[in-house]
Amino acid sequence: MNKSYWIWHFGDYEIYHFMKLHSRRQEFGADYPAFWPTFTPYVTIKLNKHVETNEGYLIARANGFGYIHVDNVRYPTDVKIPLSAGKHFLSAVISNPGGLPALYIESDVCTSDGSWECNHNAGKFTPAAFNKHFDSVDKKPDIFPFSYKEIFPVNKLKTKDGVLYDFGKETFGYLNIKHQSKEKLSVYYGESYEEATDTKNTLIFEHIEGKNEYKLRTRALRYAYIIGANENTEVSLDYEYIPYEYKGSFKCNEPLFEKIYNTCAYTFHLNCREGFLDGIKRDRWVWSGDAYQSARINTYLFADPEIVKRTAVGLAGRLPVECHLNTIIDYTLLWIIGLYEFYMTYGDKEFLNRIYPMIDAYIKFTENRLNKDGLLEGIEGDWTFIDWSKIDKEGAVCAEQMLLCAAYKKLDEIDNILEIKGHAYDKKAEALLHKINHYYWDAEKGAFIDSFTSGKKNVTRHANIFALMYDLATQQQTESIFQNVLFNDEITKITTPYFEGYELDVLAKFGYFEKLEDMLYNYWGKMLELGATTIWEEFDPTKNDAEHYEMYNSRYGKSLCHAWGAGPIYLFGRYYLGVYPTKAGYQTFNVEPKCGGLTEFEGTVPVNGGIVTVKYKDNKVTVFSTVEGGTLIFGGKKVPVTAYKEISL
Amino acid sequence: MNKSYWIWHFGDYEIYHFMKLHSRRQEFGADYPAFWPTFTPYVTIKLNKHVETNEGYLIARANGFGYIHVDNVRYPTDVKIPLSAGKHFLSAVISNPGGLPALYIESDVCTSDGSWECNHNAGKFTPAAFNKHFDSVDKKPDIFPFSYKEIFPVNKLKTKDGVLYDFGKETFGYLNIKHQSKEKLSVYYGESYEEATDTKNTLIFEHIEGKNEYKLRTRALRYAYIIGANENTEVSLDYEYIPYEYKGSFKCNEPLFEKIYNTCAYTFHLNCREGFLDGIKRDRWVWSGDAYQSARINTYLFADPEIVKRTAVGLAGRLPVECHLNTIIDYTLLWIIGLYEFYMTYGDKEFLNRIYPMIDAYIKFTENRLNKDGLLEGIEGDWTFIDWSKIDKEGAVCAEQMLLCAAYKKLDEIDNILEIKGHAYDKKAEALLHKINHYYWDAEKGAFIDSFTSGKKNVTRHANIFALMYDLATQQQTESIFQNVLFNDEITKITTPYFEGYELDVLAKFGYFEKLEDMLYNYWGKMLELGATTIWEEFDPTKNDAEHYEMYNSRYGKSLCHAWGAGPIYLFGRYYLGVYPTKAGYQTFNVEPKCGGLTEFEGTVPVNGGIVTVKYKDNKVTVFSTVEGGTLIFGGKKVPVTAYKEISL
Repeated sequence: MNKSYWIWHFGDYEIYHFMKLHSRRQEFGADYPAFWPTFTPYVTIKLNKHVETNEGYLIARANGFGYIHVDNVRYPTDVKIPLSAGKHFLSAVISNPGGLPALYIESDVCTSDGSWECNHNAGKFTPAAFNKHFDSVDKKPDIFPFSYKEIFPVNKLKTKDGVLYDFGKETFGYLNIKHQSKEKLSVYYGESYEEATDTKNTLIFEHIEGKNEYKLRTRALRYAYIIGANENTEVSLDYEYIPYEYKGSFKCNEPLFEKIYNTCAYTFHLNCREGFLDGIKRDRWVWSGDAYQSARINTYLFADPEIVKRTAVGLAGRLPVECHLNTIIDYTLLWIIGLYEFYMTYGDKEFLNRIYPMIDAYIKFTENRLNKDGLLEGIEGDWTFIDWSKIDKEGAVCAEQMLLCAAYKKLDEIDNILEIKGHAYDKKAEALLHKINHYYWDAEKGAFIDSFTSGKKNVTRHANIFALMYDLATQQQTESIFQNVLFNDEITKITTPYFEGYELDVLAKFGYFEKLEDMLYNYWGKMLELGATTIWEEFDPTKNDAEHYEMYNSRYGKSLCHAWGAGPIYLFGRYYLGVYPTKAGYQTFNVEPKCGGLTEFEGTVPVNGGIVTVKYKDNKVTVFSTVEGGTLIFGGKKVPVTAYKEISL
Repeated sequence: MNKSYWIWHFGDYEIYHFMKLHSRRQEFGADYPAFWPTFTPYVTIKLNKHVETNEGYLIARANGFGYIHVDNVRYPTDVKIPLSAGKHFLSAVISNPGGLPALYIESDVCTSDGSWECNHNAGKFTPAAFNKHFDSVDKKPDIFPFSYKEIFPVNKLKTKDGVLYDFGKETFGYLNIKHQSKEKLSVYYGESYEEATDTKNTLIFEHIEGKNEYKLRTRALRYAYIIGANENTEVSLDYEYIPYEYKGSFKCNEPLFEKIYNTCAYTFHLNCREGFLDGIKRDRWVWSGDAYQSARINTYLFADPEIVKRTAVGLAGRLPVECHLNTIIDYTLLWIIGLYEFYMTYGDKEFLNRIYPMIDAYIKFTENRLNKDGLLEGIEGDWTFIDWSKIDKEGAVCAEQMLLCAAYKKLDEIDNILEIKGHAYDKKAEALLHKINHYYWDAEKGAFIDSFTSGKKNVTRHANIFALMYDLATQQQTESIFQNVLFNDEITKITTPYFEGYELDVLAKFGYFEKLEDMLYNYWGKMLELGATTIWEEFDPTKNDAEHYEMYNSRYGKSLCHAWGAGPIYLFGRYYLGVYPTKAGYQTFNVEPKCGGLTEFEGTVPVNGGIVTVKYKDNKVTVFSTVEGGTLIFGGKKVPVTAYKEISL
């Protein structure tokens, strides 16, 4: 007999945990729920299955409450129901207002799993959702299956008012405090020393009293400054994390790059939770654009499809679609593009099929925003983000058209995969690209301008980078863009690792490794030089000391552990090690290493459940793969990579 | 300064309380949530207001958690925020996963009320909803504002195993039990003596132990049989109710009719709660068709618009519309018709406007069900209820077309009221009526048949009654229907007071009071003769003793306190006292009494915030109204009714 799992309505698990995630933020003592709509699981679900069993029993367990019909006779939950040998129809209704309704079948002759069908007392029946973590009656799906490890401060500093605890590096979890008196303690969390001790400006703090032992809320921190604590106060942290295996790795002759890779990996790990978080201190929200880049990083580090799916489903929420993801136009489009990339990485057609109704709803919603020129333009409440740079955002913005065009191309691919007809997304992509060139290509500047509405003809890197990333520029345009934009110091530099990730992707894609490595030295490298134990949300090398921590008009507003800073993981895996799929799910893939300025490197990339190891030394490449389907491309040669057989070129 | 109220998103209050209501049912020890989709309030809402104040302070209180921006500076809830004299922009975000997010402003210079605007972080801002009950920080809107009164059994009967407590009549509330030991007690609830004591078949029971004092869940009962109780066990009930004023009344020379009126009034009162319940024992759910009739009864008894609105909003739930109300086709249509009748009764155009998006969604959903003949036909999952009678329900059913046609006529009126153009519902009604006559009018039988698909040409009363109720039959058809259907004993009799209410409405409308009074004697009268203290869900005079309590294949499955039994309230008010609106909200109304077989009667009808008193004695009618706008029609004469001036004819 198979195993029993808790089962629920597709989407409810992700929506439930995102509901909690997106309403958990606190700042300056205030609760600060997300400013986009928060979705809820269905209150009541119905779960059916036709089974044929031996003689035995079953007990229906509910996360929530409800009943089960066995052959149309109703039974309460938690009672032992005898089953005769033969065919039976099981039909349960579970309700859980405010929670996550789910069913678990305890039985010696049948199970609860994905072979059940489920609806919400309306809608089509679809296969019940489940998750391998929730495989016993006690492991309920409303508790997210994190792991825990108790860790201790590596340093304590007694001050006049209390004690500053230093955990040595950025971390995350529940602070445990044992204190001899029940007097008030004030806990100030800091990703930096300054943030923890500048208590008038600390972003996250709490005041506690009345007990001798406390387990506080989960927080991000390196430092905890506890006013009221003394030498005898005991402090530890239950580090909360997903126990990922680091499948990707990278070592090379440049120690700084290795350190960047490892710091990026740790930064990223901390942010991989219910979904891809942006950063673990401030919002701890899931932002679709950030998540898009995180999914690419994940491909080269953990290769975990589950977190990508959770993120996609939790973000999408429920119909009707009433606003862009996180309210941001570009983030809806990146969500769509990301779903195609997900399919290419993991080859999971079933998931693509399940989420297609939401894809359809979001692109329809987006198309309803097309203006009279047929261009995508925000209306009130829509946020044209692109990046924290000065971009001319008047009227329809070029970068959004680039993303829409890219999304159309991916939608066409998705329709082909799922054999859906009639959308003609390829034609839409073509027509839009024609408009983009007409409205935004400035021959004089040799670049795409931000917007034509204002008449300013302002050029930033962003739309031009998207054009190169998604193959929307001709060869001539491409050369012109490098010349006039990317290699042009007069065009404002990118300040966020988010867009820097895209810029480096494009530099690597077109072989400009020198520029890329400059950025690794001067941007990521400089952060590490300043003592960063994780990568920051934004970095401006011209600033000094605690100035670095300022953002959003708040002295410590910046996140010092931001997932979008981990882009180098992707760069090293995708371009140096050079591994990428050529058919969905890495059924076939290329290994096309590029050495850039390195003389020696070695690393692994997770591929289709296996691992590819790539070594470069003395101008020679050696590849070892645990799966079939690879092709090594190096030095103008192309040879197949057979599983478990080392190959060199 | 105005009063402050708790404020929330329109719909959330009703949806929250209906969510609880529709998942609270228990039966035979099992939780039994409703089998239609249950909706949830929005998790997070945003509330804005521009104010101009004197110098003072404000404190934002949350039902849930969140923050308030005052002039774009963020503050936590529960802190005193100073306000300078002048203009301010207040903007709060409140979150409450699983609950009802709401805001209350405590201030010496400003308030929270319907002048705030609200959305759910998406959607248009609309005026915040509030309710006069929730006018202080302690009165939170997630506690429904019922009143309570402790009542005691009027009789106790010691048995070998325990004690049977009789509260003398049907009632509802929390049972309080004080018992000297902590041993197990088993509580069996009965609307009848038999139900409480036939413990193997009792529908609702609970087993309790471990305490000396209990306050149990709210239940309906007349009898509580407590196994394990003894002479010293103390039992009382916290009767839970809405403290309605009985504005309608009726007395006459036939004592039985008075008793029927008063029993109906009590039955109805017990069922008027968060919304119009069907019955207080079994499901305690809100069914749209039952609620339609309840709204008509309410018009003549409590004239409370709030419960009608709560019912309409709570039933409608949230977009997208995925199934018929309560899954029943006819119930969606009666909900629409009922909204027009609500407007005629209370003249509340603003509410009609607020709920119009849901009206629009439900009629569109319904029109998507039209078959190739343009007739309304259920698809899988749709329930063609009409009534618990043997109706030929193959293919498109006549009664549903009648209701759709009536709904189109009301929709046309609603569009006129709200000045909405383009739907041409009048044309749709006309076209559908043409089809109804073509497909369903059987000239030979002189009646509308149930269905034409089966070829059986079966005639029941139902579709024919709807034709007469909603003026869809010609004069000739009307006469033929009375002859061939309503006065034809070969056509199966109606067995539910639900449809009996409609039949009597039609009899009275066309002046057949003798038949109507026969029914009062033989149906309602007979129930009272059998000791009913409230009106039953269904009644078949040919049954004996406890057979009466059987329904739905369950020995005590029948509800003995069913709102749809209270139809006589409407009949007496609408036809005997003869009061009905001729302009929305009784701005003008007729008083057109009919004596039927009575020689003397007297009663009151609530009208537009006032009362009309009608007396009939010695063939003379005397009317007294506390509001203007009336016209007395009697004995072929028509005279205006002036407020506070008695008039006789």
